[in-house]
Amino acid sequence: MEYYSEQISKLIEELGRLPGIGSKSAQRLAFYLINQPMESVQHLSDTIVNARKNVRYCVECCTLTDREVCPICASAKRDHKTIMVVENPRDLAAYEKTGQYKGVYHVLHGAISPALQIGPNDIKLKELLVRLQKEVDEVIIATNSNLEGEATAALISQLVKPTGIRVSRIANGVPVGGDLEYIDEVTLMRALEGRVEL
Amino acid sequence: MEYYSEQISKLIEELGRLPGIGSKSAQRLAFYLINQPMESVQHLSDTIVNARKNVRYCVECCTLTDREVCPICASAKRDHKTIMVVENPRDLAAYEKTGQYKGVYHVLHGAISPALQIGPNDIKLKELLVRLQKEVDEVIIATNSNLEGEATAALISQLVKPTGIRVSRIANGVPVGGDLEYIDEVTLMRALEGRVEL
Repeated sequence: MEYYSEQISKLIEELGRLPGIGSKSAQRLAFYLINQPMESVQHLSDTIVNARKNVRYCVECCTLTDREVCPICASAKRDHKTIMVVENPRDLAAYEKTGQYKGVYHVLHGAISPALQIGPNDIKLKELLVRLQKEVDEVIIATNSNLEGEATAALISQLVKPTGIRVSRIANGVPVGGDLEYIDEVTLMRALEGRVEL
Repeated sequence: MEYYSEQISKLIEELGRLPGIGSKSAQRLAFYLINQPMESVQHLSDTIVNARKNVRYCVECCTLTDREVCPICASAKRDHKTIMVVENPRDLAAYEKTGQYKGVYHVLHGAISPALQIGPNDIKLKELLVRLQKEVDEVIIATNSNLEGEATAALISQLVKPTGIRVSRIANGVPVGGDLEYIDEVTLMRALEGRVEL
């Protein structure tokens, strides 16, 4: 990128390495940052470094947090005997937004994938099994509904069943407000299979 | 965003303020950064701050650069009597990528827009007029082909004409490789008006 001077090119290059930021967005972001007041830029920069420095895994559920135990695991209002297993903290946040789930979580930080060579030891699965030695009523598997998520769900189900703890999987079906004509056949079939009597 | 601990929420919030980064992308970016090695994160952070600190306007053409005079204005290989006027450094880069333009540039950093209350004094227009006091053969106006860009082009043309310097505007027309059926009517009309004899 010889059309920009060195420091601008470097900045565009660095930003362009971030996930989901293409070369056009990187350019737009770089010029935006260069035009911001020095304090805002310094503040953004500090926030990034501090978050990286202070954020770690919750010792209970493995979500990312800046405390030893995350606010959900530390809360006496939550049902600690129900554990929802999710792939990452964004999925946890998605369920928290519903405001309806009162149990706790377990964050795997991934899903098993032979294609990407991600095995059971590459995700926080051992940590889940350790938690099951305490009193647990139910493990709800909320991994994604794709190949990796389903394989992970199957493996967890297989590992949990011998313990006698109830294992469940979140339902597949038509999204609320979803227009049937735009929904894929597999989902439609699953929605039919999972039909609920009225 | 109470579902994340404070430092993560702050990071997501800061990233979400960047242009073109929605709340989903901000979350994805935040977790990506938290999972990167500390050195990479520190390096990104330093690159941002340094670029902001050291980048300024080229004293000649007003593009952003980390030197007093940008590489294009400093180059003896360029034709300093031909000035292409663009709205921002990304447009300059777009023309540089063609490798065909041998003149120099003038970067306005915007376009006049009554709607956004951006007037002639809010862009680098005075700086252009100062440059025209030196020996200049032609001013090529390459502002965007939208309302603001056209208004800016009209104003510049009006200001330059009395000086006797040639003023031109880049052509409107069908993009190369463009499929006619997908091109808007105004462009098609302009392409017709600007037809070239073969």
